[in-house]
Amino acid sequence: MKETKHIAIVGAGLVGSLLSIYLAKRGYKVSVYERRLDMRKHLIEGGRSINLALSNRGIRALEQVGLAEMLKQNAIPMHGRMIHDEQGKLNLLPYGKAGQFINSVSRGGLNMALMTEAEKHGVEFFFGHRCLQVDFNKTELTLQEYEAVKHKSFDVIIGSDGAFSAVRGAMQITDRFEYQQTYIEHGYKELRIPANDDGSFLMEPNALHIWPRDSFMLIALPNPDKTFTCTLFLPFEGPNSFDELDSPENIDHFFKKYFPDAYAMMPTLQEDFRDNPTASLVTIRCYPWVRNKTLLIGDAAHGIVPFYGQGMNAGFEDCRVLNELLDEHGDKWKKVLQAFQVLRKPDADAIAQLALDNFVEMRDLVNDEDFIIRKKIEAKLHERYPDKWIPLYTMVTFRDDLRYSYALETGQKQKAIMDEVMRSPGVFVNWESVNLEAIVNKL
Amino acid sequence: MKETKHIAIVGAGLVGSLLSIYLAKRGYKVSVYERRLDMRKHLIEGGRSINLALSNRGIRALEQVGLAEMLKQNAIPMHGRMIHDEQGKLNLLPYGKAGQFINSVSRGGLNMALMTEAEKHGVEFFFGHRCLQVDFNKTELTLQEYEAVKHKSFDVIIGSDGAFSAVRGAMQITDRFEYQQTYIEHGYKELRIPANDDGSFLMEPNALHIWPRDSFMLIALPNPDKTFTCTLFLPFEGPNSFDELDSPENIDHFFKKYFPDAYAMMPTLQEDFRDNPTASLVTIRCYPWVRNKTLLIGDAAHGIVPFYGQGMNAGFEDCRVLNELLDEHGDKWKKVLQAFQVLRKPDADAIAQLALDNFVEMRDLVNDEDFIIRKKIEAKLHERYPDKWIPLYTMVTFRDDLRYSYALETGQKQKAIMDEVMRSPGVFVNWESVNLEAIVNKL
Repeated sequence: MKETKHIAIVGAGLVGSLLSIYLAKRGYKVSVYERRLDMRKHLIEGGRSINLALSNRGIRALEQVGLAEMLKQNAIPMHGRMIHDEQGKLNLLPYGKAGQFINSVSRGGLNMALMTEAEKHGVEFFFGHRCLQVDFNKTELTLQEYEAVKHKSFDVIIGSDGAFSAVRGAMQITDRFEYQQTYIEHGYKELRIPANDDGSFLMEPNALHIWPRDSFMLIALPNPDKTFTCTLFLPFEGPNSFDELDSPENIDHFFKKYFPDAYAMMPTLQEDFRDNPTASLVTIRCYPWVRNKTLLIGDAAHGIVPFYGQGMNAGFEDCRVLNELLDEHGDKWKKVLQAFQVLRKPDADAIAQLALDNFVEMRDLVNDEDFIIRKKIEAKLHERYPDKWIPLYTMVTFRDDLRYSYALETGQKQKAIMDEVMRSPGVFVNWESVNLEAIVNKL
Repeated sequence: MKETKHIAIVGAGLVGSLLSIYLAKRGYKVSVYERRLDMRKHLIEGGRSINLALSNRGIRALEQVGLAEMLKQNAIPMHGRMIHDEQGKLNLLPYGKAGQFINSVSRGGLNMALMTEAEKHGVEFFFGHRCLQVDFNKTELTLQEYEAVKHKSFDVIIGSDGAFSAVRGAMQITDRFEYQQTYIEHGYKELRIPANDDGSFLMEPNALHIWPRDSFMLIALPNPDKTFTCTLFLPFEGPNSFDELDSPENIDHFFKKYFPDAYAMMPTLQEDFRDNPTASLVTIRCYPWVRNKTLLIGDAAHGIVPFYGQGMNAGFEDCRVLNELLDEHGDKWKKVLQAFQVLRKPDADAIAQLALDNFVEMRDLVNDEDFIIRKKIEAKLHERYPDKWIPLYTMVTFRDDLRYSYALETGQKQKAIMDEVMRSPGVFVNWESVNLEAIVNKL
């Protein structure tokens, strides 16, 4: 009889916890090592965003292990972007067709549900265990629990330990490991809009709210307790920056000036601003993701900025893709890991780029007439030619059957065509009568 | 009375040792911590190249501490590139004007001389000390000597610990630290051409020998013992790669085919090939170089590929520039460190790019008629207009008064002008009669 393989997962975040379920269901012995304490028993200090946008790729990966229905119950559908202008005027731009939406979910709630589900499948979690070193030849972890250090060997090690991965840190000093960490000039801070006195939402709950202000923006996502979590994205330095918001007066003045309607709904603005950290936004690119029988996955392999709402979705898709390769190649892990990185790296690079590009769109273009007309023409194109012209946002968010790399490439072609359309005379008035067939034929 | 500041330097390589002399001469207490044992007492395993090209920037930095004369005695001048074609035919391309040359020096010899000189100035070296951690707030090193771990605070810490810097490793996990490590697809292996039986050189000693073969190359630098150190630069994978040289027969066949004249002078080829490691070539880009009172310098801040022979020269120039900023700002280290990184980063980026570009030139263009005629026209331009048209190689190598960033920028302008010149009809035959004034006026 074949011996059961023992797989170590480093990091019990969203991706590590979901992956542990996939692997336990395949019959592996799975041990998950997590630096922090068990968030189901301890209040864990923050540093990560409170809520996330779950969309089709993530849902599909959850479906495969039978979890999608359960998790959808706590999700709040968001059908479009609710744009707030400087006068507080609202404009809803749908994300896709009727019935297409993304979901606001709680990071903590989802993570805890995944861990509890994993334990039902026999996964063992070891909290308070810090990964100090990885020996790739021996597939061995050096783990620290309090002051005790131990060495443990496994058949396979998977690093799902996030953008500041310790497993990747060990890979980085192996020969010919390509590595890049790049920050954008913006940081972010989480703020809060409470529920109404009667316990209802203060704004439309089924939308992602955006206050686009060109060089910066505020967004808000709904929570099940009828509050909103707001996130301010602002440059660290320069005009209109975190540097400038250095006193209660300056914070007050800034919010009143740029976000008057939000300001009126934020009674704890000053406390939130003072107490919540100003976090930075990094993109991580590296390769290879595999050394011998150790693999990087999720943010550890491809940390991205949050502006496409795809960080978690991409990590969950990693789990599904890895599982499909195990279906295809069976228990041959060396083959599976190699196939995984070759298949998945172009998609990781694509979503990293798309996420950076979408920041410009969110904070700038959504406020722009050119952008709005483009979206309208594209919606018409998609309606008439649903399989031929699929808007980029739809490909990324709602079409889990299309690879990120395909979406990026097709989106670039579409953009070139639409640039031409938008240069045609009179398009801003007669956009409803553009020749859709001529446009789609250029693709 | 002012207390003497205590400065820690991590890494007793070429740059750390030279910097320690600069700082000791300014009156600081300087402690240098080196992971390896003292190379003056122990045979240190290799991993770094045996000889290096010392040129004007490096010499100027050595002059400032009175060391240039001493070191020139063991240097072998190289006046040009000696190109070897596949038939063993030779062609000398001078590096500059008559009297301009670069110097082949021994890495070990130079490093040992710098350490001994530093000790004369009161610098203390601590060998066998590994830097484990850096606390930037406290300017504190965690150092390991055998099994003992100790913490030591300093007024200033300088990381000159090379491309795989431990000090930089500590910086990398601080917020918003931009970092990139990129490998080229080529590796290198050192080989040897012995002295003649009568103790003379087997080839022209006053040249850097190059066997350019488009996608790969062999080079050789002379040593004082009349041997040459050869370095083979070859892709790791693909056709004509280290992967393919997997048997004595294949090595033999490859060298006979591509380097017949060198092959005839390499009796220990097989042993050298087997015993010497195949090393990789990395470019390191990062920023900032300063956290509080800790600075990165040399390869730790800007590791570059060796193809412009500027790695050591750039590191030595770092020392001179830092010293000049201490002249300018006095003992105000925070100001000095900040000024250093702002001033020096564009130059580090420039030489990193120039070094990558020069690999193409060395292995490919030097064998090319277009390249040779360009060089000849540029030499004439420089002769006629010595201050207006300075060839790129001359700016980088012989003009220590010009910044690398200026050289890169000016070189790009020159290249655009020369591209045009080389497109003019008949230039390959009548290059001697091109209108030099018209060319120089375009600059």
